[in-house]
Amino acid sequence: MSNQKLETFQQERLQLNDLVMKYAGLSMKRFYHLDVEVYKEGALPQKTKEMLGLVASLVLRCDDCINYHLIRCTQEGLTDKEFEEVMSIGLIVGGSITIPHLRRAFQGWEELKPPRSI
Amino acid sequence: MSNQKLETFQQERLQLNDLVMKYAGLSMKRFYHLDVEVYKEGALPQKTKEMLGLVASLVLRCDDCINYHLIRCTQEGLTDKEFEEVMSIGLIVGGSITIPHLRRAFQGWEELKPPRSI
Amino acid sequence: MSNQKLETFQQERLQLNDLVMKYAGLSMKRFYHLDVEVYKEGALPQKTKEMLGLVASLVLRCDDCINYHLIRCTQEGLTDKEFEEVMSIGLIVGGSITIPHLRRAFQGWEELKPPRSI
Amino acid sequence: MSNQKLETFQQERLQLNDLVMKYAGLSMKRFYHLDVEVYKEGALPQKTKEMLGLVASLVLRCDDCINYHLIRCTQEGLTDKEFEEVMSIGLIVGGSITIPHLRRAFQGWEELKPPRSI
Amino acid sequence: MSNQKLETFQQERLQLNDLVMKYAGLSMKRFYHLDVEVYKEGALPQKTKEMLGLVASLVLRCDDCINYHLIRCTQEGLTDKEFEEVMSIGLIVGGSITIPHLRRAFQGWEELKPPRSI
Amino acid sequence: MSNQKLETFQQERLQLNDLVMKYAGLSMKRFYHLDVEVYKEGALPQKTKEMLGLVASLVLRCDDCINYHLIRCTQEGLTDKEFEEVMSIGLIVGGSITIPHLRRAFQGWEELKPPRSI
Repeated sequence: MSNQKLETFQQERLQLNDLVMKYAGLSMKRFYHLDVEVYKEGALPQKTKEMLGLVASLVLRCDDCINYHLIRCTQEGLTDKEFEEVMSIGLIVGGSITIPHLRRAFQGWEELKPPRSI
Repeated sequence: MSNQKLETFQQERLQLNDLVMKYAGLSMKRFYHLDVEVYKEGALPQKTKEMLGLVASLVLRCDDCINYHLIRCTQEGLTDKEFEEVMSIGLIVGGSITIPHLRRAFQGWEELKPPRSI
Repeated sequence: MSNQKLETFQQERLQLNDLVMKYAGLSMKRFYHLDVEVYKEGALPQKTKEMLGLVASLVLRCDDCINYHLIRCTQEGLTDKEFEEVMSIGLIVGGSITIPHLRRAFQGWEELKPPRSI
Repeated sequence: MSNQKLETFQQERLQLNDLVMKYAGLSMKRFYHLDVEVYKEGALPQKTKEMLGLVASLVLRCDDCINYHLIRCTQEGLTDKEFEEVMSIGLIVGGSITIPHLRRAFQGWEELKPPRSI
Repeated sequence: MSNQKLETFQQERLQLNDLVMKYAGLSMKRFYHLDVEVYKEGALPQKTKEMLGLVASLVLRCDDCINYHLIRCTQEGLTDKEFEEVMSIGLIVGGSITIPHLRRAFQGWEELKPPRSI
Repeated sequence: MSNQKLETFQQERLQLNDLVMKYAGLSMKRFYHLDVEVYKEGALPQKTKEMLGLVASLVLRCDDCINYHLIRCTQEGLTDKEFEEVMSIGLIVGGSITIPHLRRAFQGWEELKPPRSI
């Protein structure tokens, strides 16, 4: 599998965020800023924060949000096993209704081909 | 950007609603009827009601519902700034999980090219 | 019915928000600020914005959020009929699962005894 | 355990529905009517329909809705094992986030003391 | 309409489930197993259980889950009228926000061309 | 503030889980087991897993689930700042609709009086 799907997602995401910013008032701009700030290193490292974003995205069943945090999680060096454990918690908390998103999350993970821990 | 995407949406929507009506019993038909009635002018004007439908669709994260109310909002003469303020409230209430839908909503808005207030 | 229930809600809300602020970092504080800013008058009047907050709270089924916007809506002079129409849209969009919250919303409305339009 | 809790629920439910009807316009009244009609015997018996309402209420995590369908399910003669199987499907579909509602559902079930099938 | 769309869904579903299993730890595997077990005949027949899965999928607004249970419901001999009544309950419980999924559910149903009861 | 509220929660939780187990079939029992297993130490430490459970509970807006993970997080030695950062991510992801649950989460946190890191 090539990483075409996530690349397309990233391009569209950036392009449409530019469009949003063309219209955005102060509150919307500030929210976008907060959405970056909140994942920066603090008492918790970025890797943990990205896992938190990932599990939240899975239980809320948002493919685009999962894709975004997937990419960030691989950048933070998440291993296969760590990824699987985040997904497992999301699956147990959110139930079988999350499975279609879980499937696509593993598809994205496979596409990103991170350094394997197995 | 052409308005091809929302036109396709409208065609499929009408075509599939016809299919639903082929099978629909009395309760389903009546619900469909109510779903039209509730947005008609009353104590509140149609424009306000369509904004209510739009923000509800954003926080519930339903692209098709957003598309439908987008079209209606432009028909009711919603300006760019009014649209942005409805979206901002939905974003703050519903959080970053609504952002992918917000992006597609602005894409649809841009496609519909309503008379600009800016 | 006295307005004891909504008064208790308001007291607890303010008291606990103080507690949150004791712990809150910059992002949380900024989000709280945005949550006030977004309902201020802009292209849309405050009354419309409070109705948007109210319908979003109903379809997301959050009693405390409904209570907050109820109080604000009466302060903005929402009439009985306007309130009923906001609730009706939320009910049709969100379905019968919203009914328990709808019931408590009308209970709160009754308690607030706003000037009647009927 | 006495059946005080579900009795209180029923009384408040009826009392507040009366209050809603005092304010309700035509659309709201019609929706309330549909909400009764849709559970009447058709191609599917009432017992099956009440189980459908029950599982929907569990996965959407609405205690009051669960209580209502619980009462109706016992009236339709649902056995302990049938009830447990409806709950199990809701639990697997909706995940551990449904467990607090599942717990209260079994509490309500115990309170209603239906004729046991075990 | 051909049954191409649901066939594509089934192929992708099986292919991606294989991928999930390549990574899955014990908890994830066990959950997948439970997700099969819970729909097997017990006090309730499989047909009833599949209808429960279908209505839960509709109110939670998951197209892939609806597709899966659609296929299973036709295998269990659900008639047009029974299908329509399950959908109607989901529509009333979940509201107009479910309509886009309801439309696609009837599209899938039409595609599967089950023996008609009308 | 005394820790009476969370103690009452824990007692009721255990008491009602016993009641659930009186009725539970094999699938329900196995799910309950999985719900324990998935938080055990693996590639990720228990502390990280409890934070994942906590943020998932906040964005899904379940007070009882938040309470459960709150207690576990303090047992795993989560500091005030770490707790605040988990809550902040949940707040940004889930929006202002999570605020009533956030408030009660900080109330519970205060009640548990964990060793402070500040």
